[in-house]
Amino acid sequence: MTASSAYLLATSLRRRLLHLSKTSLLHHRRHSLQFLSAAADAPPTVNLSHPTVVVWGSNTGVGKTLVSTGLAASLVVCDSASKFTYVKPVQTGFPSDSDSRFLYRKVSQMFLRRRPPSVLLASNHVMKASCASCREVLVEECESRRGLRDLGFYEERKLVGEENGAKSELVCKTMFAWNEAISPHLAVEREGGDVSDSAVLDMLEKCLRHGLRGKEDERGQDRVLSVVETAGGVASPGPSGSFQCDLYRPLRLPAVLVGDGRLGGISGTISAYESLRLRGYDIAAIVVEDRGLANELSLKSYLRNRVPVLVLPPIPLDLSDDLMEWFDESQDVFTLLRELIVKGFSDRIQRLHEMPKKAGDIIWWPFTQHKLVPDENVTIIDSRCGENFAVFKVQNEDIITHQFDACASWWTQGPDAVLQTELARDMGYTAARYGHVMFPENVHEPALECAELLLQGVGKGWASRAYFSDNGSTAIEIALKMAFRKFYVDHKSVIDGLEHQSSGKSINFKVLALNGSYHGDTLGAMEAQAPSSYTGFLQQPWYSGRGIFLDPPTLSLCDGVWKISLPKDMLTENVDLENMSFSSCDQIFHLNRDCTALTARYETYISNELQTSQNSQLTQIGALIIEPIVQAAGGMQMIDPLFQRILVNECRARKIPVIFDEVFTGFWRLGVESTVQLLNCLPDIACYAKLMTGGIIPLAATLATSAVFDAFVSDSKLNALLHGHSYSAHAMGCAAACKAIKWFKDPSTNLNLVSDGRSLTELWDAQLVSQISSHRAVERVVTLGTLFALELHIDGVNSGYASQHASSLIMKLREDGLYMRPLGNVIYLMCGPCTSPTICNQLLSKLYARLEEFNQIK
Amino acid sequence: MTASSAYLLATSLRRRLLHLSKTSLLHHRRHSLQFLSAAADAPPTVNLSHPTVVVWGSNTGVGKTLVSTGLAASLVVCDSASKFTYVKPVQTGFPSDSDSRFLYRKVSQMFLRRRPPSVLLASNHVMKASCASCREVLVEECESRRGLRDLGFYEERKLVGEENGAKSELVCKTMFAWNEAISPHLAVEREGGDVSDSAVLDMLEKCLRHGLRGKEDERGQDRVLSVVETAGGVASPGPSGSFQCDLYRPLRLPAVLVGDGRLGGISGTISAYESLRLRGYDIAAIVVEDRGLANELSLKSYLRNRVPVLVLPPIPLDLSDDLMEWFDESQDVFTLLRELIVKGFSDRIQRLHEMPKKAGDIIWWPFTQHKLVPDENVTIIDSRCGENFAVFKVQNEDIITHQFDACASWWTQGPDAVLQTELARDMGYTAARYGHVMFPENVHEPALECAELLLQGVGKGWASRAYFSDNGSTAIEIALKMAFRKFYVDHKSVIDGLEHQSSGKSINFKVLALNGSYHGDTLGAMEAQAPSSYTGFLQQPWYSGRGIFLDPPTLSLCDGVWKISLPKDMLTENVDLENMSFSSCDQIFHLNRDCTALTARYETYISNELQTSQNSQLTQIGALIIEPIVQAAGGMQMIDPLFQRILVNECRARKIPVIFDEVFTGFWRLGVESTVQLLNCLPDIACYAKLMTGGIIPLAATLATSAVFDAFVSDSKLNALLHGHSYSAHAMGCAAACKAIKWFKDPSTNLNLVSDGRSLTELWDAQLVSQISSHRAVERVVTLGTLFALELHIDGVNSGYASQHASSLIMKLREDGLYMRPLGNVIYLMCGPCTSPTICNQLLSKLYARLEEFNQIK
Repeated sequence: MTASSAYLLATSLRRRLLHLSKTSLLHHRRHSLQFLSAAADAPPTVNLSHPTVVVWGSNTGVGKTLVSTGLAASLVVCDSASKFTYVKPVQTGFPSDSDSRFLYRKVSQMFLRRRPPSVLLASNHVMKASCASCREVLVEECESRRGLRDLGFYEERKLVGEENGAKSELVCKTMFAWNEAISPHLAVEREGGDVSDSAVLDMLEKCLRHGLRGKEDERGQDRVLSVVETAGGVASPGPSGSFQCDLYRPLRLPAVLVGDGRLGGISGTISAYESLRLRGYDIAAIVVEDRGLANELSLKSYLRNRVPVLVLPPIPLDLSDDLMEWFDESQDVFTLLRELIVKGFSDRIQRLHEMPKKAGDIIWWPFTQHKLVPDENVTIIDSRCGENFAVFKVQNEDIITHQFDACASWWTQGPDAVLQTELARDMGYTAARYGHVMFPENVHEPALECAELLLQGVGKGWASRAYFSDNGSTAIEIALKMAFRKFYVDHKSVIDGLEHQSSGKSINFKVLALNGSYHGDTLGAMEAQAPSSYTGFLQQPWYSGRGIFLDPPTLSLCDGVWKISLPKDMLTENVDLENMSFSSCDQIFHLNRDCTALTARYETYISNELQTSQNSQLTQIGALIIEPIVQAAGGMQMIDPLFQRILVNECRARKIPVIFDEVFTGFWRLGVESTVQLLNCLPDIACYAKLMTGGIIPLAATLATSAVFDAFVSDSKLNALLHGHSYSAHAMGCAAACKAIKWFKDPSTNLNLVSDGRSLTELWDAQLVSQISSHRAVERVVTLGTLFALELHIDGVNSGYASQHASSLIMKLREDGLYMRPLGNVIYLMCGPCTSPTICNQLLSKLYARLEEFNQIK
Repeated sequence: MTASSAYLLATSLRRRLLHLSKTSLLHHRRHSLQFLSAAADAPPTVNLSHPTVVVWGSNTGVGKTLVSTGLAASLVVCDSASKFTYVKPVQTGFPSDSDSRFLYRKVSQMFLRRRPPSVLLASNHVMKASCASCREVLVEECESRRGLRDLGFYEERKLVGEENGAKSELVCKTMFAWNEAISPHLAVEREGGDVSDSAVLDMLEKCLRHGLRGKEDERGQDRVLSVVETAGGVASPGPSGSFQCDLYRPLRLPAVLVGDGRLGGISGTISAYESLRLRGYDIAAIVVEDRGLANELSLKSYLRNRVPVLVLPPIPLDLSDDLMEWFDESQDVFTLLRELIVKGFSDRIQRLHEMPKKAGDIIWWPFTQHKLVPDENVTIIDSRCGENFAVFKVQNEDIITHQFDACASWWTQGPDAVLQTELARDMGYTAARYGHVMFPENVHEPALECAELLLQGVGKGWASRAYFSDNGSTAIEIALKMAFRKFYVDHKSVIDGLEHQSSGKSINFKVLALNGSYHGDTLGAMEAQAPSSYTGFLQQPWYSGRGIFLDPPTLSLCDGVWKISLPKDMLTENVDLENMSFSSCDQIFHLNRDCTALTARYETYISNELQTSQNSQLTQIGALIIEPIVQAAGGMQMIDPLFQRILVNECRARKIPVIFDEVFTGFWRLGVESTVQLLNCLPDIACYAKLMTGGIIPLAATLATSAVFDAFVSDSKLNALLHGHSYSAHAMGCAAACKAIKWFKDPSTNLNLVSDGRSLTELWDAQLVSQISSHRAVERVVTLGTLFALELHIDGVNSGYASQHASSLIMKLREDGLYMRPLGNVIYLMCGPCTSPTICNQLLSKLYARLEEFNQIK
């Protein structure tokens, strides 16, 4: 194509494509979501009974098909009783170009030339093609002029070598073909035939399944090989416009990268390699044509021999012998390449098989009684793609299957597949730019931007300072230190007076907190929570429980109605029952509840408790600490927001600093960026972690008002807050947080935001939720934002049965592709802020079906 | 070049290059180190008085020079009183190819064609060229046949436009030229003329300095532009073989990426972009030629408009008008590109200027009294390159200067520039592959491999389990829980008996620890350390100090001799002074010290202390916790290893579990992977963090023996260790640790390992160390492994002066390019395990020089 004709073509193409650019964010997002929604049942399973590799090119025209062909020949021409499957998912330039036909013919030709003592059954199958390309193949006219049709072109032959020996098979397939020799996404634009990413993957999985060892023969792992060949370079667009390296990512098949032997080829090869790695691919080998520049030496040196680099002889310009000599010359290289692939495969399989036992032998899992975890219960996580784990399983055969991470990996997760790739890129960039740089008295961009985003977001309207640490627990310890100091400064004369009266004895600071609360596992955070299984002498002999712990009123959905459940102490009074139930969750948060009789009841209760608890003059309540709205570790209990609001106001009136532990609830977990929005009252201090980085890396922040900060300002360093961790405000954590915070609140990336951008759409189908809440196996339901939780109903006599019950249900759900973990009798589904409601409902339906099943058994 | 002639060439090239491949690891490393050592005085300063960009190509032949030329013309042809500097650091194919000559001529031609109302002074200068290329330029014969020579080719012209108006300048420079049109590293191989990476950078800095605004004219920022044009693709090798994206990284200049408009060009452009990002570069814009494929639309969509993508009209095949029309057509694009560059530059500068104030307003730094930190004392860290911070400074002009991170960012740092890039790649890969996946009852490769490496490394010979957490403080809290349980199980009958006698009162567990120890800032870790400024009521009202704290004997170097200093309690006895000093550090660790009189003295002291401290029956010492060899936060105090060994043995004899806090000392910090090697005794539990991940990301591990683990094994989950953090064993942390642990102990990557691979070579010059220890301004010196510390001498009367003294010294050293922070009166230098001794000695010399200077003033 000359440059000027190309320019004309471009103008017309550009006109058609321009809307994509204008709406490019949504476009890209929609494509990703298209995939994700279709993949609610998770991406296709990957069979690991034999090696499968994807051949990638560091550019077009570097010889991907020659490498596939050489691999095929090295197997089916050299080894009898073998099977080679070749899949070309996307072909353009068809029918004049057809890589599957090339491979089919070339391997046949080699077979006939070498005449091994065996038989080869070879076939080539072109499945779907655009009407434009069909015209050149079919006799009859296509009915339509645009779009794809079933071409069903099929050719096969049986070749007999030197003798009629053992049978080998060569199966070649082209999945989708377009006519023009341009990028697939442009071909789709011109010829029609949209194919979604998930449709490509589903079809690919079917084609690869054909390549499995037949039951009839017992070929070894090294006698069966499947190769998928991509089109163009690693980041060339597929039919939907998604780059192929992103499109195929859910399968994460090992890669063979065909490098570029030309001038500039070192760079192109390294960059292509890095793009694959940046998407989590493992590269089995790099193959590069010898173009006289010894490019492979630079590649080997840079890659430190971690990736084998093989060199193919120069491809002759004179093709009169159909490359037969070249393939002969290259035979050793292809044999070696095949061996490397097989070795890489069998090493990987062996390691995967050994992992559970090794883990059980040397790892000490948190919160886990190792004696109760047999090897077969260990989940082997090979990778994550967005919300899904890719899990290795041994069933009839070894497979990688996908499970939705429904416990959001201890409530940390937010990324979908697109965000995960973006975060990965940012992590690479930030590590390369900053590594980690120390923080005190220094400033770097990720920390500053992160602080800005925190104060403009979760801290909006009240916070003026961000203090960084590593996890929720440390954030809480810092919050407590802040609160006590603030309390001390505000009550100095009283405290000094008390200490003077008691001849110098120190004041005993306590926190005011709620029963069932949980703030972390370090001692300071533990002291602020009520006694529980985690706080006993055997677990933490230093725990003394330095709090006044109130029983809070809770809320849950039963039989489709939200009901308040009052604690024992409040039940003694005759409570107005009018305001005790709600038909919708919104009503719970309505401010008109401030004027009900319940408000007065709460106020009285809290005042009384505060009065009686401060029995010793030397004990002072130095802080209120609450998990707003939902106590997560305490069993996904929803606390009446009215009660918490009153509690906050009562403390504020007494100048007791208020700490919100938003480690679980922050960043859209409950459908809003901060629960301040739901509670309608402000803290003095709040703690964030978990979802803050999008769920990719540990980082925590404690936000505080300027009044709290001022309590530490003086001329002496000894009055500063002398607390810090080595990686305070580490660049990668801050950069991840910046990306995630912006991503979640940007309507172009988070399609779940409702119009005002302040809350998420309803993620869990209201009707199904109501149905589940009425289920006889269900005690109560709590749902808000990304959380859906239910408590299983336990018969009084069978209460010991409960956990058994939960875990059997959970094992069933894992078979359905839902990875869950029980929390006592509570099980829950948790998605990310961007997870589509379609996926959520599919999850919920699966859960419902299993509940039904259980009910019948019961 | 035909394929067959290329093949012949390759054979000869390969022969010459093969030794590189064989020793490729060392080769690569040596090149990096070559740079690093030369850069001990830090990489060149980057001037920020006006914008400078580097033009990168996503491949060869994509039009980098056309873009540079267009940019130049858009400035010096269109804007009067402007200055454009063009530097081509590396040119091959010279003299037939010369990009600086092309630009020089083309811009001149455009000037004459457009005839603006101004004057242009244009010059082209080729500085050094290989003899092979000189032959074609010079009349006289080169004396030598290989290598580089000063070519000093210079041409200039004065062009007058429509009128003799304001003067503009065009300065074109080629730094190094080789004759053959091949990759520079091959040209060096064939024509000679090795140029180290640091020589390229130094020369580049000189050339760019020429491009600064002259004092004589007051051109605005938008009237001065410098462009550096690379050769080939982003990862094409430079003269040394280092990829250019690595070679130029220390300057981290903003990039303009010339994309590829051809088929396959989307992929090449995206991959090149990602390779640049993976090295921490910021990309100002992508420019791509229109080849009729609308590649820019895919690029824009994928990059979400974060990077502007500009389109140049197709380059005509007919060059009869010398591209004049094409440049005319492209003028708007280049003007826009220049505006983008200027805007990006001024935004960056503005942000950099604002950062200190913003940070001071919204960030709450750990361990910092904000009132004592004026904005001008805030260090603005723009990036890190290996051991160096790149710091933004406003001196006469805005600059980026480099400072050696001599406090190793709170003792976390290990990476050199090469390891940093490797870690960045691994972080991208790991985030893309795993994000984060939850840990209990699961296994993933990075966690398993990390556990294996820990047990084979720091835990070798004793540990059998790895428990992951987030930082040193949490690792300690976990260790304490482990130790107390183990103690409880071992002493159950005694404890139960005691509790029974005291009518159910709980046993009070204490730790045995040393005064001056420090284990972290969460309450549990604090309780295990002796009272200090950090533990007072104002800082942590809940601190009670749950330990028996012994005064340890310390060691330090004074006047070139290592001396033991005994605590007060031991001094009362008549100690044998024979064994109280050592001429070398090795002697301190010699096991023959076990048989000295001092041993008996230590034993008696420890026994007595243990006896008297356990005065209440209900108090039990449940654990010994020590920082082996060096107490870091306590002021870099070296503790007598003999004393610690005896302490460990005494506890072991009493079945008191022993915890080593190796958070500071682990992973080669003290010259050995674990201090177990130095102490010659084993712990039951040990804690690791900081350097474990190479200093890039938070992760901690608590290792334990199988006996400790067994104390938690039972049929009940309630007996498990119920402690965990959301990001337990997060994949990125584990992957970083795997890379760093292997890197530090691999002799091909860590050239500091001595022959047996078990320790580091002496990093600090012994003679200089001895000299410093004799300096009158110095009280004592401690040096071991990567640590060099000294305590400043304080006159009794002037003890308040001390910190002032330290900080003035430290401010001076920052001017010398050493970033240090004082620790009371102690100042220290800390390098990474791979930092070359040459660098260490340069640091030490600078410190010595400043001490001398101080001495004179005093």
